[in-house]
Amino acid sequence: MSSSDIFIGETIGTAILILLGGGVCAAVTLKASKARNAGWLAITFGWGFAVLTAVYTSAPLSGAHLNPAVTVALAIKDGDWSNVPTYVAGQLLGAMIGAALVWLAYYGQFHAHLTDREIVGGPGAQATAAKAVEAQEKGAGPVLGIFSTGPEIRVVWQNLATEIIGTVVLVLAILTQGLNDNGNGLGTLGALIVALVVVSIGLSLGGPTGYAINPARDLGPRIVHALLPLPNKGGSDWAYAWVPVVGPLIGGAIAAGIYNVAFA
Amino acid sequence: MSSSDIFIGETIGTAILILLGGGVCAAVTLKASKARNAGWLAITFGWGFAVLTAVYTSAPLSGAHLNPAVTVALAIKDGDWSNVPTYVAGQLLGAMIGAALVWLAYYGQFHAHLTDREIVGGPGAQATAAKAVEAQEKGAGPVLGIFSTGPEIRVVWQNLATEIIGTVVLVLAILTQGLNDNGNGLGTLGALIVALVVVSIGLSLGGPTGYAINPARDLGPRIVHALLPLPNKGGSDWAYAWVPVVGPLIGGAIAAGIYNVAFA
Amino acid sequence: MSSSDIFIGETIGTAILILLGGGVCAAVTLKASKARNAGWLAITFGWGFAVLTAVYTSAPLSGAHLNPAVTVALAIKDGDWSNVPTYVAGQLLGAMIGAALVWLAYYGQFHAHLTDREIVGGPGAQATAAKAVEAQEKGAGPVLGIFSTGPEIRVVWQNLATEIIGTVVLVLAILTQGLNDNGNGLGTLGALIVALVVVSIGLSLGGPTGYAINPARDLGPRIVHALLPLPNKGGSDWAYAWVPVVGPLIGGAIAAGIYNVAFA
Amino acid sequence: MSSSDIFIGETIGTAILILLGGGVCAAVTLKASKARNAGWLAITFGWGFAVLTAVYTSAPLSGAHLNPAVTVALAIKDGDWSNVPTYVAGQLLGAMIGAALVWLAYYGQFHAHLTDREIVGGPGAQATAAKAVEAQEKGAGPVLGIFSTGPEIRVVWQNLATEIIGTVVLVLAILTQGLNDNGNGLGTLGALIVALVVVSIGLSLGGPTGYAINPARDLGPRIVHALLPLPNKGGSDWAYAWVPVVGPLIGGAIAAGIYNVAFA
Repeated sequence: MSSSDIFIGETIGTAILILLGGGVCAAVTLKASKARNAGWLAITFGWGFAVLTAVYTSAPLSGAHLNPAVTVALAIKDGDWSNVPTYVAGQLLGAMIGAALVWLAYYGQFHAHLTDREIVGGPGAQATAAKAVEAQEKGAGPVLGIFSTGPEIRVVWQNLATEIIGTVVLVLAILTQGLNDNGNGLGTLGALIVALVVVSIGLSLGGPTGYAINPARDLGPRIVHALLPLPNKGGSDWAYAWVPVVGPLIGGAIAAGIYNVAFA
Repeated sequence: MSSSDIFIGETIGTAILILLGGGVCAAVTLKASKARNAGWLAITFGWGFAVLTAVYTSAPLSGAHLNPAVTVALAIKDGDWSNVPTYVAGQLLGAMIGAALVWLAYYGQFHAHLTDREIVGGPGAQATAAKAVEAQEKGAGPVLGIFSTGPEIRVVWQNLATEIIGTVVLVLAILTQGLNDNGNGLGTLGALIVALVVVSIGLSLGGPTGYAINPARDLGPRIVHALLPLPNKGGSDWAYAWVPVVGPLIGGAIAAGIYNVAFA
Repeated sequence: MSSSDIFIGETIGTAILILLGGGVCAAVTLKASKARNAGWLAITFGWGFAVLTAVYTSAPLSGAHLNPAVTVALAIKDGDWSNVPTYVAGQLLGAMIGAALVWLAYYGQFHAHLTDREIVGGPGAQATAAKAVEAQEKGAGPVLGIFSTGPEIRVVWQNLATEIIGTVVLVLAILTQGLNDNGNGLGTLGALIVALVVVSIGLSLGGPTGYAINPARDLGPRIVHALLPLPNKGGSDWAYAWVPVVGPLIGGAIAAGIYNVAFA
Repeated sequence: MSSSDIFIGETIGTAILILLGGGVCAAVTLKASKARNAGWLAITFGWGFAVLTAVYTSAPLSGAHLNPAVTVALAIKDGDWSNVPTYVAGQLLGAMIGAALVWLAYYGQFHAHLTDREIVGGPGAQATAAKAVEAQEKGAGPVLGIFSTGPEIRVVWQNLATEIIGTVVLVLAILTQGLNDNGNGLGTLGALIVALVVVSIGLSLGGPTGYAINPARDLGPRIVHALLPLPNKGGSDWAYAWVPVVGPLIGGAIAAGIYNVAFA
């Protein structure tokens, strides 16, 4: 793979991942969405099939890492770090593009949700916006949750531990793919398996922190949340931002270590 | 493939697609249906597995486009427009047949729903039908929603943007299939992947407009809605009808452009 | 395949099909079940994965028809009726065994549900059983629904039409499998595709009649319902029993006709 | 396979199985989890995809039994018991590690749930903990349910029967895999099929007892529940503990018998 294929593939793939992953959060959260309150199962299947679509589309170009924790784990496993910066740069750029596309696709819904006005007919009730601001200013409100993850109980060591555990499971499944596939290739059946592994991690380990398990998935959209001109959007919770970056990187490294000891 | 195989395959395949896709909307919407209020996850899985069934059944005959946006994108990619009219004609005819079959399969449910009468025992309360008419006459009510899509917030540029974005994701995944499949063929695993991509688009991008992402899927059933002798059915919302036709066609063309630049 | 392999395979496979399919109806319906009120999506996935498990297990012995409508359609397609009686006999026996196993697995739940007594601690409130009898005596109540299908609106021609349409979709997908599989075989990927087609039919066409789409699936368990010593079980609704037998057989024949004209 | 590969593979695989399987129960049960009350469908898909992830990851090392009932059934089928102790030891150790990891990942949630205090802001309302103790002391409360299974109606012969029936279905599907796969191998498609069979058993046969269908899955976490320093955790219900051990072993043996008579 050429450097440009890697960069373009990771950018396209991670953009699709975050467009669809952030999209399902927007769909379930925002006012005037047909999917409102569709529930946790919708969110976890939504993120899983986002992985499927993104991996399937970008695998022919870059091998579809779409996650710095995966890139780092593969670098540790193979002892080759030369392409890591290209992969990570594409992932971060793609994640930001994806988050901006969520905003575009749900533009009216974001506005309706954040300004709390009557949606169909009638003049907007701008007075009630104050209440929305209040709710948002507490940090990590539902609109930030469309972009980035946040913990239900904010205890750093536990939040880190949960992200590490989830990422170990993800990366271990990805690393053993080569032993399972017998040449079937990542693009076909492997993409489906990884997607369902992500559904599994969401259902089983997503409760405490919202399962970032991917530094680019969390950091890129958080930057976009900070930049977007959303009314009453509240803070971007930068105090927590390092946890879903550092936790998954540690998890990826641990998974690579387990792989090198037990499977190689 | 012969022209007649293409036409028959697309007609059968799109009829199955709309029968099952419109069917799940009828199942979840109408009175006296066992699936009433089964929720958004049921709708998105229902449409996804409708794609699976339709693609799997028609792929041996026509390659299973079932969507003018896919047909146009493949024509752009391959530079061959000779079969496009045959494909699109079959798709539109099939979509109309499928919508009529939904009406047949849910005949009693449509009647019960639209006339608001008591279903089991007792004489019908025809007086309350006036209320149903009122609800329907506002346009884009729940019964039109069984046939065609409609936006939650009616802003043309946003509705177009959402349909374009969704279709780009769909068509890009379909175009990269050839790079992924290594000869496995569309009919088996590829049909499943595309089906789950459609579930993904529904869950993640379906909130604002109901994800037509297919001109035939929307226009064919809308024509049938206009023609059917349904009591109190309300208008067919023709003012919106061009959006789910033009948006997906633009999206398909953009996806073909991205493919030709980045993947070919 | 030998006649004994066919008979044993169809008996085992249809027993598993009905055990799991009837099982999910019991799980969602009965008192003192952890899955109570799990909803329509649970029922449709439950029946779909019941098909997966049953087909996967019995395919090596009999090819896994598990449905007289499939057997008849294949006989029409291939012009060979010699094994039809063996297949159908195994299917009917298997369906009855499966229904009896549902009763065994949910024995306590059936008793608790039908006698309406307090389940944990305390003496049973037998007095309230009268109310349960009342509900059951109306026919086609929830306990019969664990065994056999029943229509929401009882109009014979529409109920027949819905069952015919559903079965055409099912059998057409099964018949085209040979054109799709390229030697992958029914046992592996094909079983999964058929399972998801059944989920699709359930979600999309199950609303009016409960999608029997299989004469053995409906008739076998109805016989068992009539024979079992369940308290307050109500009638077995024999007046409707011919619809889910005749409808699917007509649907299978139509699908075979479409296949022979369009696909062969 | 070497003995150490078997032991390490079963330990890793069963740890992942219980981490994800117990994890989804924690996610749906505990206070301050984003997945709280996500429902039975989330639990059954969660356990199914836990099987997928665990089998996929450990299959290259040990063949991924992850269940003494499977190990015993394969020993009966092949007439070779030499590796049984190694398999079972790894399974039990792995199950205990997995249960401990659930506790780690949901540490704050367990504490919040069991002490019933206010989670965000404000001082804990320790007084209300008495109520939680009360609820837990009745035995088999929701926190034990995160670790081990328990019956809704406690009648030993019926609970045994339900576990036996469920395990027969599971093991029969696993044993016929060799006849279906034609060399595709357990690691890829087979892992997915088994995962969906487990979803099926959960949806259809999980209602009465919670479908242990695996002695290690139930016993290992129950031991961990007894050992963990959880406040107000209540008893570990040792009176029931033999049922989900003995039932699945009987079920595995019956399935092996059916296989040897009908399929071999």
